[in-house]
Formats: sequence, C-alpha cells, structure tokens
Amino acid sequence: MFVRDAWYTAAWGDEVSENPLGRRICNEPIVFFRDQRGKVAALEDRCCHRGLPLHLGTVVEQGLQCGYHGLVYDRTGRCVYIPAQDQIPERAKVRSYSVQERDQLVWVWIGDPSKADETKPPDFAYHNDTANWPHKHAVLHINANYVLLLDNLMDATHVGYVHSKTIGGDPLAFVRAKEKLTRNPNGLTLTSWLLDSTPPPTYVKAVGFEGKIDRWLERQYIAPGSVLLWTGAVNAGMGAYENNRREGGFSLRMFNGLTPETETTSFYFWSAANGYQQNEPQATEQLFAEVESTFAEDKSVIEAQQKRLTEFGDAGRVDITTDRTQLAMRRIIERMLAGSAAGVTLDVA
Amino acid sequence: MFVRDAWYTAAWGDEVSENPLGRRICNEPIVFFRDQRGKVAALEDRCCHRGLPLHLGTVVEQGLQCGYHGLVYDRTGRCVYIPAQDQIPERAKVRSYSVQERDQLVWVWIGDPSKADETKPPDFAYHNDTANWPHKHAVLHINANYVLLLDNLMDATHVGYVHSKTIGGDPLAFVRAKEKLTRNPNGLTLTSWLLDSTPPPTYVKAVGFEGKIDRWLERQYIAPGSVLLWTGAVNAGMGAYENNRREGGFSLRMFNGLTPETETTSFYFWSAANGYQQNEPQATEQLFAEVESTFAEDKSVIEAQQKRLTEFGDAGRVDITTDRTQLAMRRIIERMLAGSAAGVTLDVA
Amino acid sequence: MFVRDAWYTAAWGDEVSENPLGRRICNEPIVFFRDQRGKVAALEDRCCHRGLPLHLGTVVEQGLQCGYHGLVYDRTGRCVYIPAQDQIPERAKVRSYSVQERDQLVWVWIGDPSKADETKPPDFAYHNDTANWPHKHAVLHINANYVLLLDNLMDATHVGYVHSKTIGGDPLAFVRAKEKLTRNPNGLTLTSWLLDSTPPPTYVKAVGFEGKIDRWLERQYIAPGSVLLWTGAVNAGMGAYENNRREGGFSLRMFNGLTPETETTSFYFWSAANGYQQNEPQATEQLFAEVESTFAEDKSVIEAQQKRLTEFGDAGRVDITTDRTQLAMRRIIERMLAGSAAGVTLDVA
Repeated sequence: MFVRDAWYTAAWGDEVSENPLGRRICNEPIVFFRDQRGKVAALEDRCCHRGLPLHLGTVVEQGLQCGYHGLVYDRTGRCVYIPAQDQIPERAKVRSYSVQERDQLVWVWIGDPSKADETKPPDFAYHNDTANWPHKHAVLHINANYVLLLDNLMDATHVGYVHSKTIGGDPLAFVRAKEKLTRNPNGLTLTSWLLDSTPPPTYVKAVGFEGKIDRWLERQYIAPGSVLLWTGAVNAGMGAYENNRREGGFSLRMFNGLTPETETTSFYFWSAANGYQQNEPQATEQLFAEVESTFAEDKSVIEAQQKRLTEFGDAGRVDITTDRTQLAMRRIIERMLAGSAAGVTLDVA
Repeated sequence: MFVRDAWYTAAWGDEVSENPLGRRICNEPIVFFRDQRGKVAALEDRCCHRGLPLHLGTVVEQGLQCGYHGLVYDRTGRCVYIPAQDQIPERAKVRSYSVQERDQLVWVWIGDPSKADETKPPDFAYHNDTANWPHKHAVLHINANYVLLLDNLMDATHVGYVHSKTIGGDPLAFVRAKEKLTRNPNGLTLTSWLLDSTPPPTYVKAVGFEGKIDRWLERQYIAPGSVLLWTGAVNAGMGAYENNRREGGFSLRMFNGLTPETETTSFYFWSAANGYQQNEPQATEQLFAEVESTFAEDKSVIEAQQKRLTEFGDAGRVDITTDRTQLAMRRIIERMLAGSAAGVTLDVA
Repeated sequence: MFVRDAWYTAAWGDEVSENPLGRRICNEPIVFFRDQRGKVAALEDRCCHRGLPLHLGTVVEQGLQCGYHGLVYDRTGRCVYIPAQDQIPERAKVRSYSVQERDQLVWVWIGDPSKADETKPPDFAYHNDTANWPHKHAVLHINANYVLLLDNLMDATHVGYVHSKTIGGDPLAFVRAKEKLTRNPNGLTLTSWLLDSTPPPTYVKAVGFEGKIDRWLERQYIAPGSVLLWTGAVNAGMGAYENNRREGGFSLRMFNGLTPETETTSFYFWSAANGYQQNEPQATEQLFAEVESTFAEDKSVIEAQQKRLTEFGDAGRVDITTDRTQLAMRRIIERMLAGSAAGVTLDVA
C-alpha cells in the first residue's frame, strides 16, 4: 500500500533523454522520456495493443512510438498513430502521469492527476547553485521498503554502530545529542547537536580537524519520501550552537529522495554538495565517495532488516526511547495513507 | 492450459542419443533417448521408485536404467528389472509418450496416445534435400508463451519496427503488403507480397540486389505449433507476382517449431535453408547467422511482452486491423483447446 | 514439519567464534557466537527492536550487541542494554536455544528447552583421537530435505550406480551384501558385508589391494539426523567376517550430521577419519578429497530427486525390497514427529 497522491522523485534529469527510461514506481511500470521539444513525459509502460513495454520504443515527432508495431502515443497517453489504419479507436490509450522537472530532478505524481496541481515537489535550489554547493549525484536500488530507508535517515543513533569506520565516532555522542523536533505543514524538522565531540574519520580527512568539534545534523523530512539534510561541524567552543555560527568548518548538504518501487524495493536518489571546499573538484569527488561507502553500509543493514520483516512482520517488536522521530514520521505517512492530507497538526513536538 | 492431443516438435534428431535428454513439454518432464536399436523413445522423466529424473540414467540393452538404484524401463515405460528382486510389481512403471522421428525432427504426442495414430506431424522434406536446400538448425529457449512466438511469426508488420537494422527495410512496405489468407484443414496459409520495395540489408548482403525488389513471404501455419516459411525476392518488374515466377533471386525456407515448455516458457526449433547459393556452404552459414541475430531481436521483444502479460493479462488491450491473421490463428488454438479437432471451417477468408 | 525436540548438528566448533554465525535450522534463523568466556551461545537471529539479524552484530562483554542501534542481549536472550535508556522493557528479549559443544561439534536443541537436558547429542570421540583417527571435516549445503540424504547414507545399493567411478565397484555386490539390521534405543545399526568382492578404485588407490577383498560398512543411525559410519576392507579369505578380524587393511570412520535448514534444503556436516595410515597427513588429505568427490555425485542425484518430489510428491511411487532399512528409519522419524520418543520398540529386525 502506497501513498499515491504525492510527488515522488522519479529520476535525475540527466537520466531522462530521447532514449526512454522504464522505471517501476509504487509498483506501476512507467516509461519516462524527453520529447522532441525537450519536455519530460511519463506514460504507462505497456502498449495497449500487444503489451510491449514502451521503454523499448522510440521518441518521434508526435510522442513515443512502440517498438513492436509502431503505434504512437502523445504525452497525454492518447494513441495518435496506428500503421495501416485511419480510424484510431477511443480505447487506444495508456495512462499518463503528471511530471515536473526542477532542480535537476524529475518528479512524478502517481495518484489522481487532478490533485497534482494543488501541491508541488520540494525545492532544492542548491542543486543549481554550483558556485556555493558543487555536488555530485547518484541513484541506488535498495531491496527494502522505502520507509526503512527513511527511518535510517531520520535516526542519528545508528551512526555510531553502523558507520563506526566512516562517520561514526563515539556511539554515545549521538545518543546524547541535543535534539529538537519541530512540526512542519508537510513533515518534520529534526536538529541534532553533538557538542564537544570527537570528529569522525571522514571529517578529519576532509578538513583536518585536530581537536573536538561541535557537530550538527539538520534534517527536514517532507512527506512522503524526501529528506533534505544539512550537516557539518566547526571547532568546539566557538559558540556554534549558542550563536548558530556554522562558518569555517566542514559542511555538506544532501538531497535524499526515497521512492517505492515495490513493497520491498526502492530507489534512493541522493546528492552530496560540498559546502567547504567549493573550488576544489577533488574535494567534491572525495565527499561523494565517502558518502557512497557510508550508504553501502546502510544498504546492507536495511536489506537484512527487510528480509526479517518480510518473514516475521512486526511480531514481538519493541520500540525504544530514541525512536521518537521515526514514530512521528511514520504517523504522518499513516495519515496520508488513511487519506488525510499531509500537514495536519502533529502531536510530535 | 495446453492443446494436448497434438504433435509437438520435441527435439532435433541429432539432440537425441544414448545420452538421455531431459526436456519439459506442456509442463511435463520427459526423457528422450535413443535405444540400442537406434529408435527414439520418450518416457516420464521420473523414476517410480525414488523419483530420480531418468535423464540422469543410462541406456542399456532392455531400455533405460535409472541412475540411482538401477531399475530398468522398456520403451513402453514398464519396469523390467529391479536389482535384488525377482518379482516386479504391476505398479512399477512410468508414462510413455508416442514419438516420431522424421525430416531430422523428433515429434512427441502429449495427450491421449490412442489418438496419436489418427494424425501425423507436419512434413518438411526440405530438411532431407541437402542438394537444393542445404540448411543449418538450432533450438532457442524463450521466456514467453509459445503463442506469442506464433503471433510474431505470422505477423509481418512488426518486421519494419523490430528488425529495422536487419531484414526490416521500410516499415510501411509491410503494412501495405498484398496479403492473401487461406484456410487449410489444419491451419492457415498467409502469403504477403511487397512489390517494388527496397531490399533490406540482409538481402543485399546475400545476393547483391542493386534496385527495387518484389518480395514475398509465404507462411503455412499448422496447428498448434508449426510454421513453414518460404520467403525471398527477385528484381522488381519481372512479373514475379503476376506470373508466380520466383527464380533467380534470393530465397530461403524455414522450419519453425514452437513448443510450450510451461505457460510462460517455450522451445523454438528452427532451421534456415539456403535456396539461392546451394553450393556455397559459407552462404548457408551466413544465412543462419543473419536469421539468428534477427531472432535475438524478436526474443527480447517477446520476453518483455510476456512480463507485462504475466502481470496485467489482457486488461485494456485493443486489437488493430493488421491483427487479422493472428486472431484467426488464435481462434484455431482456442477451438483445439475446447476439444474440437483442428481443420474445422474457419471464418477467416 | 520437523522433529523439534532433538539435538541437531549446528556447526563445527571452529565455525563459531566472536564473529557471529547466522544459520537457519528447522526454518528458524539462529545466530551462534562464542562469548568472551569462550562458551558457545545461540539466539534468535532477529533483534526485537528493528529486526536486524543479530549475526551482523558484535560480541561484547555482556553478550551480543546488535549492529543497528546497539542493544545488547545476554546468552539467555534477555536484553541487558539499550543506549540512552535506563529502563529495559520486559518484552525486550529474543529466544535462546540450548547448545552443547563436544567432539568438535556444536549441537542445538530446537524445541522445548526444558526437554533438552533429558537427552544428549551423539558421542563421536574419534574426533578427539587424532593419533588413531586423524580427520578432516567440512559442511555442505544441499538443496534437498535432510531425510533424502539419510536415505542415501543408509542405503548401500545406490553405491554401484551413483559412484561407479569412485567407490562403486560391482553394483550387484552391494545388492547381494550380507546385511544385519538391529534396533537401538535411539535408532538403528546396519552392518553390510561384501565378501570376496572387487576393490573399488578408491580403495586400491589408498592401500593397493591386489586381489579380492572382504568389505564392510557399519552405519549407526541416531535419530533424527546423525549417521556414524565405519567402513573398510581386508584381503578376502582371512576370516574377517567369520572372526570379526578387521585389522591390516583399509578402514575409515565418518561422522555424518544431517540438519534441516528448510523443508527443501539442508546442511550436511561430515568428517572423514583415516584409520589406515595415521602418520601420513597426505593420506588423510587424499581420503578427504576422495570422499568429497563422492559426495558431489550424491548431491547432484539428491537435488534432482528433490525437484521431482517438490513437484509431484509421492504420487505413483513404489518401494522395492532393498528399501527395508530406509523404511525403518523413516518410521522412527515419523514416530518422533508424532510426538513419541525415539527408541520405542521397532518392528524392523
């Protein structure tokens, strides 16, 4: 069961070209393509004639042409050409999906198209600000439900255990972090401060911290699948926390788009933007590589977790104190599933 | 659900030796072997003792010996030897299948054996006429129902789209072809003429056409799974169509045997016989290689189609004008499934 | 359906270290680890918090720490530490399993722990007697139910067919062997003598027999999954059978522990102990290699058999005279399944 009336990250803009891209989202096979005017379109990935996936077809003047018998669909999904036939039956059509391309991302609306215009996908203008936030991006395929990935992103307490060799540092520093959780119209914001803490290996590698640091993680969750993250650190004792002064240390921003493929598989779109050595492309590459290896650690944990969940469900599970944010996030998703709009008053403060 | 009272291509004759061959047909595991007198036999591929597949056994004087505990079965499936036991229980037997070997092919009858003698497998004597029709053959495993392969073989309109780089040429030439569909006692014959058309790359490669051609495809469908094909071309304007003069150009014959393995997988037995440069073995090899790469294109299309069919069935599908032959063929199969004999009067003329 | 109130071989002792081992037994995921005092423990392989398999965790002072959020379990499965939380909920626990380590093997009791102490795993002290019985061991994963493996081990008549190239020799020698089947409190003992028989290639390779041999196989089946085997041969005509004199030839002992992973997969723990050239490590290595290739032959037969069993069950199966021992063994397992203790009077003599 998926939240359907919602924008999901569907692709990076540079993944969608005149070479059609087939991708399953919320268990619906969809073909994404860029038409001859450069505009992204999304159709049901199944020809209404003999069922061939349309991603095996070709972009033509009028839209997308099936690779089996040459039927052409326009961007609304209407069949506009059938070889050897003047009359095109009313029934000859496929579903079309609302799409938007912005900030280098393609978003898709899975549910009722009439509701798509009432809302818009999250902003992430940093993707366009290459002077201040040079970035690199990727997409991972994960064998787990997307909510398990959200749990992971919104929870700092796993960092000390899962990422002890990369960004972990002292496990208890995360557990003892000063946390502030606020409700937003469409999600949550969670800010964590690890004051006077030991810098993790990644941070030292990046900017050469020599002593303790004040480190922050700021995550904005926008339901159902986006997490905008800003994290970084400065030398401890400079008043970073008290005066909100975060310049002169290590800082990065990440876009995280979690999109269900099926109930047990997901796409994870992510970017890492370098906010500390903007003029050194090598630093951006290194940052990307470090985050990438961190995600490989999360992926193996989450996929192992999904296997147990598939087999046993929630039988015998207990929650712990630090699950507070996850539980708040899951309540938002449950309400959306129950048909209520996102952004209702939340009891999570 | 399969048509069971029918002859299916089971193997090429040269695949069946004293080294037993296990092959699943109509979802029944069958072992084919050549007995010590050189005669092909077919038994249920499962020993009645402990269930070992008999294709792991050995051909012996009396028949086929199981590789686990040495039980021997004769070609009727009766157990004729059990080590350390004089008495052989009445129940010790496996199913046997009617088989015929002819024209280098092995055919099997899956259903009621008492009906096997009333009918016979299709003739294809060209396989034996190596002077006029030197050929090469193969078998492909396809992850799709065999009827999707029949659809493909009986439909020329896909050629321009699926095979644009090999035998395709101008897509609309196929759509506008002169077609004649006739009913046979056991199937259909479809003749298509592409007059004054551009020769496809394969044809030019083979015999060096310089101008337009008159090209024909003649396909005889014999239910449930055989398609005998004769195709070729001569220089345009020589009266090939009007006077049925087809000498002096490019010509090939193909046997196509489509056999269900399961509901969603099939075997495709095919041969390509060179009718234009009979004394040049290299031409036969080249012909085979060209057809083989054409089939690789069909295979990827048909397997993608099967995936959607498995997921969505026929929901929302529409037929188009050029499906006429396919629909006639499918009606024959449906009647056979419903228990009526093939060859009843068809309303397809 | 598995016999649950029983000891199963779970691992070789050298497989269990502070690096936790995840292994599914009787379809239950279990984590085995050696605690900091060197004692083996076994817990449910699923954290009660978020379901992560505990085999991804770390052995710590108090027990096993989950690799996701740091919960620690002691060897009884009680959660004894949750970061950032003083109070540990009563419900925070996982199942623990009774384990025993002896004779280089780790045994696990799957069912009701209160019954574990009433019985003990089979003895196999030869594993510790490296002077007289130097050995090498391994574990195989088999895609078949464990009882099919037991059938195979307790049946000598397959040897002539499945192992004709290794230990087979004359098939009928096994069929005609003098057999004695005796009942034990917890299983069966089967002794077979092949008098005046041709030595198989393996035996000749090992000790260079030049003439006929008197060969024995002694197998003690201990329900549900252990087979202790002693086999060997001496020159024929020395009175080996009549006077039970078995010195001076070829002799080996094997431990065989068959453990269900799922209904259709198993673990096969085995060792081969050299009782004929104890001071030549190379002879032990060669023995191991020979047995290993013999098992590869059994594995392919048994896995093929399982496929047919999965598809067709027992439909149409017949038993033969030489199945007597197998049937007796299966009756013991069926009685255990029905809840009766092993070792009741058996009607197999």
